[in-house]
Amino acid sequence: MDNLSRLCIHTITTKPWDIEDAAREYSRHGVAGISVWREALEGRNVRQSGQMLRDAGLTVVSLVRGGFFPAAARSDRRTAIDDNLKLIDEAAELGAPLLVLVCGAVPGLALEECRRQIKDGIAAILPHAAACGIKLGVEPLHPMYADSRSAINTLKQANDMVAELASDHLGVVHDVYHLWWDPDLRSETLRCVQGGNLLAFHVSDWKTPTEDLLLDRGLMGDGCIPIRKIRSWVESCGYEGFIEVEIFSSKYWAMDQKVFLTKIIEAYLAYV
Amino acid sequence: MDNLSRLCIHTITTKPWDIEDAAREYSRHGVAGISVWREALEGRNVRQSGQMLRDAGLTVVSLVRGGFFPAAARSDRRTAIDDNLKLIDEAAELGAPLLVLVCGAVPGLALEECRRQIKDGIAAILPHAAACGIKLGVEPLHPMYADSRSAINTLKQANDMVAELASDHLGVVHDVYHLWWDPDLRSETLRCVQGGNLLAFHVSDWKTPTEDLLLDRGLMGDGCIPIRKIRSWVESCGYEGFIEVEIFSSKYWAMDQKVFLTKIIEAYLAYV
Repeated sequence: MDNLSRLCIHTITTKPWDIEDAAREYSRHGVAGISVWREALEGRNVRQSGQMLRDAGLTVVSLVRGGFFPAAARSDRRTAIDDNLKLIDEAAELGAPLLVLVCGAVPGLALEECRRQIKDGIAAILPHAAACGIKLGVEPLHPMYADSRSAINTLKQANDMVAELASDHLGVVHDVYHLWWDPDLRSETLRCVQGGNLLAFHVSDWKTPTEDLLLDRGLMGDGCIPIRKIRSWVESCGYEGFIEVEIFSSKYWAMDQKVFLTKIIEAYLAYV
Repeated sequence: MDNLSRLCIHTITTKPWDIEDAAREYSRHGVAGISVWREALEGRNVRQSGQMLRDAGLTVVSLVRGGFFPAAARSDRRTAIDDNLKLIDEAAELGAPLLVLVCGAVPGLALEECRRQIKDGIAAILPHAAACGIKLGVEPLHPMYADSRSAINTLKQANDMVAELASDHLGVVHDVYHLWWDPDLRSETLRCVQGGNLLAFHVSDWKTPTEDLLLDRGLMGDGCIPIRKIRSWVESCGYEGFIEVEIFSSKYWAMDQKVFLTKIIEAYLAYV
């Protein structure tokens, strides 16, 4: 139970559990934080769910995930913005200080255009985020998701966008799975943390071979990402926030989730 | 049969065919060039195979693929260098002016170390390439291959390495499948062509969804890569070389390859 005071787990990581099960089990094992995927709140009173998590002794770290701003039609872009405004309200009701943004991409829409629409979308929701006291975190995704999930694929792009939009309520979400390969990772990580813009730090591992583009993430230690080295960069400039385990894995979801949770904690202590 | 004077096809694209079938069919359809995968030469006299290709009216564009320099053990790095020296000889025997290098990566070996070993490996084989009149082409691979195939994942990295090693016999292989997502693609493409360092240009497409990290490439037009735009960048600075179709696809390999070849030609004319 020691050294788990900075460990946070995403509800999606233990997808077979509902949020009540996840809260009870995380708490029982000494996990300190929880990041809540929107799907986990379906059919529930969001405010009460937030209270339930705090009653279980958990810190609510973030609500995941808004974004998906680009669209070919203006009306669809408006719908995306409205959806994100609702998500900001939801984060406030939940008591989550951060809304994670997966920025979006549309196959066939030029990446440059997607990036413009992403910036416009974030600019459009920032005032409401500020009014609600919610921070927005731009999460760059691995380039293999540039077709349909995010046109923001490097930490430099996220840092540049955050610099351009300059707001106390906008920062970056750093996920080693998406970023580990980047030759500029160290310098852009330092830039991000030194600028006070690192809002969250996600960990998992890259398996060899990776058998599915979406659902074959590894547990820390399963793969080749130098997690400790990247963590040392993040912390060398003073990041003291949560370290969040975010794993999508058909294989781990097929496992008894209590056994998997034990493995997560062991892997966190051994490899992060 | 018009406008195929710059079309080259990689033997791997029509993998079910042996090189003799490929040569006959490409030629019969007016395809001008062929890039030969090493595997296609197995059990054959390389010099005679080269002659067979030229007799069929094909230009031998490149031999694919050397590289894979990094290894944990010095002896394995030596083996890789020896293998690449043999490949340079093979390219000379085949009559291919270019050897394509997939630089290599080893899971668990730090990317920085892999990159050093790649540079050392290329430096070690360059004199032999120059002596044989063979050019070496550094092909950056998509970041999803950074674990085990290449620690060179952006055009900038390839351009930087080519600049550093400064040799008339070293350049870059540009493949839209690997590079299309890169926010710096236009500037690095112009840098590469203007510097006279673009040795080859490969095309295929990125499908949504992509169901396999290796074997689900699309035919041009199947996906979201702006091939024409990227081609216009390549040609705006004077590239006049072959345009090479390199597709790995379980689905297309399962098709009658004569039908597939017709589709390749149609897609080349319509989308490249």
